[in-house]
Amino acid sequence: MEHEKIIELISAAAYEVFDTMLGIELTRVSTGAETTSSDACDGVVSFIGLAGAWAGTGSLSCSATLACQLSERMLMSEYPAVNEEVLDAVAELTNMVIGNVKSEMENQLGPMGLSVPTVVYGRNFTAKSISHLTWSAVHFEHEGERLVFRVCLAPCNQPQATIRHGFQSPYSMTL
Amino acid sequence: MEHEKIIELISAAAYEVFDTMLGIELTRVSTGAETTSSDACDGVVSFIGLAGAWAGTGSLSCSATLACQLSERMLMSEYPAVNEEVLDAVAELTNMVIGNVKSEMENQLGPMGLSVPTVVYGRNFTAKSISHLTWSAVHFEHEGERLVFRVCLAPCNQPQATIRHGFQSPYSMTL
Repeated sequence: MEHEKIIELISAAAYEVFDTMLGIELTRVSTGAETTSSDACDGVVSFIGLAGAWAGTGSLSCSATLACQLSERMLMSEYPAVNEEVLDAVAELTNMVIGNVKSEMENQLGPMGLSVPTVVYGRNFTAKSISHLTWSAVHFEHEGERLVFRVCLAPCNQPQATIRHGFQSPYSMTL
Repeated sequence: MEHEKIIELISAAAYEVFDTMLGIELTRVSTGAETTSSDACDGVVSFIGLAGAWAGTGSLSCSATLACQLSERMLMSEYPAVNEEVLDAVAELTNMVIGNVKSEMENQLGPMGLSVPTVVYGRNFTAKSISHLTWSAVHFEHEGERLVFRVCLAPCNQPQATIRHGFQSPYSMTL
């Protein structure tokens, strides 16, 4: 699936979910094909797995400040700092936007499953996916804070192959 | 799928992969059903998504020291500190062990896909999966360092349901 198509699907899903769920009109500031595989991160990052004949990962990154603001809009409560509920809200937003992207992708790629989201919060941590995949990234802005959705996706050569013998490695996937 | 069965599958897969790939005989020190959904983490944590009629996450956690030691055994090179290659090695170990668990689970649960692994490295970060899932955890020891594999898994009520309208949330999954 081409990078431009993924960018388009991410953008449409993010606009729709943020508008419908939070009443927020996101502003897209840039898009990119990111090959840098690891980054020092600050704030909140969530991951959700996509798996089927194609497999990959979807991700949402934002500052702690924005994570709290989004949670306030979503849960109608005040969050002065990141807590469990804020992490749950970020997980749910990730699930909705990437789930929406997945549904659209299935028209072209066939059925895919969505895993349970995981959320990481900290300062100066490193998060990386496997080296050979390129992330399609869409950077948004809301009230001066950045929000980035990313998706990486690659066809599985042997999606149902056992890895007990021969140990099919993540590197055997091709773009 | 019962907790005890998952513990058994994780243990068998970890023993086999570490023995075959690294020549390391792991010692299992404890197992548990962990309901604490978030934890302060130090070191290296990887995540890999499982998706199908059942969906969940597999995870490997270990200290930075042990991540470097495992990489040295795996890649026949010296790693005095965590770098990209160490994170790749941890991702590959996660892929192999959880992929092996997945293959065994498929006998009971039907086909599941495995997402691309993600690895996080840092100090004092928080990593959480969604609230209502219980992790089956197996704690191993190698030369005084701890290594933990975890798997959480739940049936999807409507695995292929669109979430564009009505926004199927992660909370609609049941154990």
